[in-house]
Amino acid sequence: MPEPGNYPFNCWWVAAFSDEVGRDLLGRWLLDTPVLLYRRENGTVAAIEDRCPHRGAPLSLGCLKGDTVQCGYHGFTFDSEGECIQVPSLKAALPAARIRSFAIMEQAPFVWIWLGDPDRIDSVAPPHQPDWLGTSEFAERHGRIDIAANYMLLKENVLDLTHFGYVHASTFKITDWVDPPRLSSDGETAGYHQSFSSSPLPPVFAEPMGMAPGTLYDRENYGSFLTPALQIAAVDLIEPSNRHITGRFRVIHATTPIDATHMHYFWSVARDHGTDDKAMEALSAITKLGFAEDESMIEAIQALRNRDPRGATAPEFSVKMDSAGIQARRIVQKWMDRD
Amino acid sequence: MPEPGNYPFNCWWVAAFSDEVGRDLLGRWLLDTPVLLYRRENGTVAAIEDRCPHRGAPLSLGCLKGDTVQCGYHGFTFDSEGECIQVPSLKAALPAARIRSFAIMEQAPFVWIWLGDPDRIDSVAPPHQPDWLGTSEFAERHGRIDIAANYMLLKENVLDLTHFGYVHASTFKITDWVDPPRLSSDGETAGYHQSFSSSPLPPVFAEPMGMAPGTLYDRENYGSFLTPALQIAAVDLIEPSNRHITGRFRVIHATTPIDATHMHYFWSVARDHGTDDKAMEALSAITKLGFAEDESMIEAIQALRNRDPRGATAPEFSVKMDSAGIQARRIVQKWMDRD
Amino acid sequence: MPEPGNYPFNCWWVAAFSDEVGRDLLGRWLLDTPVLLYRRENGTVAAIEDRCPHRGAPLSLGCLKGDTVQCGYHGFTFDSEGECIQVPSLKAALPAARIRSFAIMEQAPFVWIWLGDPDRIDSVAPPHQPDWLGTSEFAERHGRIDIAANYMLLKENVLDLTHFGYVHASTFKITDWVDPPRLSSDGETAGYHQSFSSSPLPPVFAEPMGMAPGTLYDRENYGSFLTPALQIAAVDLIEPSNRHITGRFRVIHATTPIDATHMHYFWSVARDHGTDDKAMEALSAITKLGFAEDESMIEAIQALRNRDPRGATAPEFSVKMDSAGIQARRIVQKWMDRD
Repeated sequence: MPEPGNYPFNCWWVAAFSDEVGRDLLGRWLLDTPVLLYRRENGTVAAIEDRCPHRGAPLSLGCLKGDTVQCGYHGFTFDSEGECIQVPSLKAALPAARIRSFAIMEQAPFVWIWLGDPDRIDSVAPPHQPDWLGTSEFAERHGRIDIAANYMLLKENVLDLTHFGYVHASTFKITDWVDPPRLSSDGETAGYHQSFSSSPLPPVFAEPMGMAPGTLYDRENYGSFLTPALQIAAVDLIEPSNRHITGRFRVIHATTPIDATHMHYFWSVARDHGTDDKAMEALSAITKLGFAEDESMIEAIQALRNRDPRGATAPEFSVKMDSAGIQARRIVQKWMDRD
Repeated sequence: MPEPGNYPFNCWWVAAFSDEVGRDLLGRWLLDTPVLLYRRENGTVAAIEDRCPHRGAPLSLGCLKGDTVQCGYHGFTFDSEGECIQVPSLKAALPAARIRSFAIMEQAPFVWIWLGDPDRIDSVAPPHQPDWLGTSEFAERHGRIDIAANYMLLKENVLDLTHFGYVHASTFKITDWVDPPRLSSDGETAGYHQSFSSSPLPPVFAEPMGMAPGTLYDRENYGSFLTPALQIAAVDLIEPSNRHITGRFRVIHATTPIDATHMHYFWSVARDHGTDDKAMEALSAITKLGFAEDESMIEAIQALRNRDPRGATAPEFSVKMDSAGIQARRIVQKWMDRD
Repeated sequence: MPEPGNYPFNCWWVAAFSDEVGRDLLGRWLLDTPVLLYRRENGTVAAIEDRCPHRGAPLSLGCLKGDTVQCGYHGFTFDSEGECIQVPSLKAALPAARIRSFAIMEQAPFVWIWLGDPDRIDSVAPPHQPDWLGTSEFAERHGRIDIAANYMLLKENVLDLTHFGYVHASTFKITDWVDPPRLSSDGETAGYHQSFSSSPLPPVFAEPMGMAPGTLYDRENYGSFLTPALQIAAVDLIEPSNRHITGRFRVIHATTPIDATHMHYFWSVARDHGTDDKAMEALSAITKLGFAEDESMIEAIQALRNRDPRGATAPEFSVKMDSAGIQARRIVQKWMDRD
């Protein structure tokens, strides 16, 4: 039996990218729960439990008939609200054999899911919709990495960007992230803000701006832990002479626990410059390279934890740089306490 | 340490097919017990514990000397009754170091084993010998599948044949198994009987009869859960005009738990028509294809169970069609209670 | 969480071969402890905990800067005594974030480590230095095998050499190891001594002496369990006519638990005859072949133990030949009691 996870159920989590969900059945474990995702004929996303209550078969091995799902074992059929509308051997519905359905909110490129108490759904704000998503100014790329680690390891990773100088030294080459940023927290979110003045632009920022790497430029780098599911980050590229923002770079880090030691990591990068396909593909490529470095590091940490007989009691030393991550842990604990 | 299994020890189980056991040592886990199988020089099958009591080496890594087994580690030698007849460094037998031997009953193609209390062996009927086995009228083919699932999942599978229309829709193409059959139980066995009148013959039944698929024909389909180890099934093909049985098709489903979540599945198919080698090879081929579909489904159910934090408490809805399977569970429980 | 191991911490263990440790970071689990090994610029071996106390990353994923190790995650830097001498985001040392360092004693080809209480280090004798190591008379070859078994299984293996006639019948071909040797024990070590008089020389001993296999020759074979970490063995080849020792063959069996069911096995073979490279490579080759046979047998025993529901309560019958091994278990227990 899996160990319990350190995640709240009453929270909107990313279930999938919009482009992952179509007319094929997509089975996925989220928060130790088997979930089946598909699109109804009207294009909306349906999410029901991926387990037939008859004999426990994953419904994702069955097939889609219109908006209903037919189990691949004995043909029990469920509508997208989880109601059993047909048992072939009974030639009838079986209302008692209802399975869970889950509320979905799609905000491309993300499909958000509510796995908690349906009655609590209004007690939590709907998923934050970053203002750059869906605008014509910004081009966007995204990807999913399934990481064998607790999801909070990724959260803490993206809240302490001093790791750029070590983990990503040969990919992102952002070498000036050394000082602790300004941190802020209102008790429900945790943010950081770092200003770089006349700092040499790393290639990943310079090239899409059509500038030479190493050009001295200003950058404002800030980000926020918004919910246990969502972290956003921004870099504004600024002409030092007049402080005009000439480029906006945005990142979304959405993580969804699979179980206590595995997560789905949904990332999205966007910018309002260098938006042609070729440049965006280059951004996608280097992002995949860099985030694979995070994956390796985080999986190594989890693997060490899994083997270490001291387990959670092994010492941990935090420094000022970790304040945002520690704040994030506290906020997650608040969400779990509210569960 | 493995979790305890839901199987009775005081029951005859299939250990192997006759053609699997010869003068090579065959080690196999049955009911969480390491068992060593081989044939004595007189052709009878011997079964002893597959663990040397000296230092715990599997005896199956040793070698056969006449009817005795010499451990491959330090040469301790056991006869086929489990008696230690030679310790090389002692140049003597060591009667105290006796290991278990297991009663065997061979009824080709099956080698049956008794892993329970030797004193209880007469309290249980010997393995059922289906009357078609070993007759010249019937041709037979068989095979073994090792499935990563509890053995009862296969038992329930073959007691609810409505799964044909879903799991085997593209292999066996038997699409008329939709209504609940007549069920019967005497408290120790559970049976079903289904009559098909003037129903189109699926290719798997028509071809070996030299008939066109789709020909309207009568079929009687019946089967029985006889013991926790054994399930048999039969299809009689019947000329509708005169109700003569023109073809007999028989299946044996024998399952033996390896442990709580793994089983050996020994299947045998036989018929008294289309008995030439080519036709029988075709039957063997489609059977393997179809039973691999069952394997996939059953392993998916077990995998879901293994991950689901609700474990055995996840809801299960049964319908009339499940009566035979539920009866089988009760019968297994009786056997376990008698243990 | 791993189950506790049957090993003492306050004991010198082999961490690595000298030639495994250089200016690359070598991470290795020893006694359920993550250990990082490397050579300082002065050539001495350093050993510190392979876990950054900041966020738990394995330091072996970082890099070596002079004699210090920089974590690959956020750059925390430790000296070879385990002191945190630099936290980049603090631009300062963080003395509190000290990690463990481990005493090392290098006696080529072995690097010995002390993983126990530093205050107890003087209570235990330094690692035994066999007198043939480092002499010009002897040529030596060595190798490491990582075995999925408890380390005591190897210890017992090399204390009961009657297994030669079975496990190594086709490799070492030493077929006269059949009688129990003379055993001796002083309560802290356990030894055996076997004399072979005018016994046919197996090829592995004859060929490097330039003699025909099968030549009748005397051999004295003796060995000792010296500590839970170390076992040594010797064969003296003796001219029967005058009892002169004409060849000396020596073996070291050092085992270090990785965890309760895995070990590093460090072996070394040496002799004062047939010392040219070609002959020594042949010795290395047949040793690898033979020790791989031990590995297979020992892993099979551990695998059986892991699956057997009886676990440690499965019966075990010991004979006179096992006295040395049983003595070794008692000695290990003494070491553990002293922990």
